Amino acid sequence: MALTLYWGSGSPFSWRVLLALEHKGLAYESQLLHFDKQEQQSPQMLKMNPRGRLPVLKDGDYVVFESVAILYYLERKYPHPPIFGSTPEEAGVIMRVICEFQAYAEPSVAKIVKAIFAGDASRDMDALSDDMHVVAREARTIEGRLSKEQWIVGTHYTALDMVIFPWLQLLRRALDRSSAAELRARFLPMDRNYPALARWIERIEALPGYERTYPPHWRDG
Amino acid sequence: MALTLYWGSGSPFSWRVLLALEHKGLAYESQLLHFDKQEQQSPQMLKMNPRGRLPVLKDGDYVVFESVAILYYLERKYPHPPIFGSTPEEAGVIMRVICEFQAYAEPSVAKIVKAIFAGDASRDMDALSDDMHVVAREARTIEGRLSKEQWIVGTHYTALDMVIFPWLQLLRRALDRSSAAELRARFLPMDRNYPALARWIERIEALPGYERTYPPHWRDG
Repeated sequence: MALTLYWGSGSPFSWRVLLALEHKGLAYESQLLHFDKQEQQSPQMLKMNPRGRLPVLKDGDYVVFESVAILYYLERKYPHPPIFGSTPEEAGVIMRVICEFQAYAEPSVAKIVKAIFAGDASRDMDALSDDMHVVAREARTIEGRLSKEQWIVGTHYTALDMVIFPWLQLLRRALDRSSAAELRARFLPMDRNYPALARWIERIEALPGYERTYPPHWRDG
Repeated sequence: MALTLYWGSGSPFSWRVLLALEHKGLAYESQLLHFDKQEQQSPQMLKMNPRGRLPVLKDGDYVVFESVAILYYLERKYPHPPIFGSTPEEAGVIMRVICEFQAYAEPSVAKIVKAIFAGDASRDMDALSDDMHVVAREARTIEGRLSKEQWIVGTHYTALDMVIFPWLQLLRRALDRSSAAELRARFLPMDRNYPALARWIERIEALPGYERTYPPHWRDG
């Protein structure tokens, strides 16, 4: 098998790539590494990615990492079905909203999730409250898009949906913690506050191969 | 003229796009907006980019913003000469190093530049010292690449060079301030500390059209 993906359970960056591999119908060897044993920092992994981070994709002798770069490589190497749009105009909007998500939403989502899982959510409520404000504002923009279309840009499932979806699942999981009640009330339930986003999540969950992308340790927990 | 670029003088994000337009030999109308008059937040501009940021590219009726998305749109719409590589493998490395730069270097460079221009460099020296450590480490990695090749990835000038170059020029300009002496000594002079990077800067400065991309207010100052 030519393609091997090294990934971590629950890593939103890894999840993106799994979604792309499944959508493109590519056969791949799945190498699930364990963060708690720091397997991503083994000598073999550091040789492929000196930053010791996941995901890492190996395609024959070729190695690529950084999730958006992996998505882009897959698009260039295995163009069908396209995940970065069929026209330059679609491609521009897809990449634009990916860039916007990374610049304006991801840092806040990451801070909230990290604080909740570290048990710090109540200590740092003022700062997290600002972050939740940012996340809610960005979610409303996406809600607006999804109230008009099935996918975030245009009529097809794209790299953009794959980039955002795992973070949203991770955020919902973090907000489920009892310690996150105050933040949770400002975002959930999705079906009331963000009905189009809720339907979009269900749409992705119903995609063929989705089960193979689902973080194994979430199922066990 | 079909292409119009709305940009700001000295904005590294704007500069990237100017470099790409020049390299692709595209005719464009240059609309220089003034940050000090907040022209990027005029009703006309907010209609194109609700975030009120630059650069914004208009191509006929189509509008795209976020610098990396503009580069990618230009690549899809006007593929020659390519700036995201000629093969999937090159494309993957180019996008990977763009992602790495954005994730691991850009936040630190931005903090240093902002602090110096705000006159806060001496107040916040401990934090900035850590940021300079990060920047120096990332610069050494790029220095290593450029000691083997003319451009950061492969044998061609690419979107990656365009993404990194403006930040480096901005950093050098900030470090020139007398208040930045302590930080400056840890990075400059380039030709001694990073000789391959210094030659790469000269290489870009010698490109046709470079003068048209140079921040006008830097020339006046």
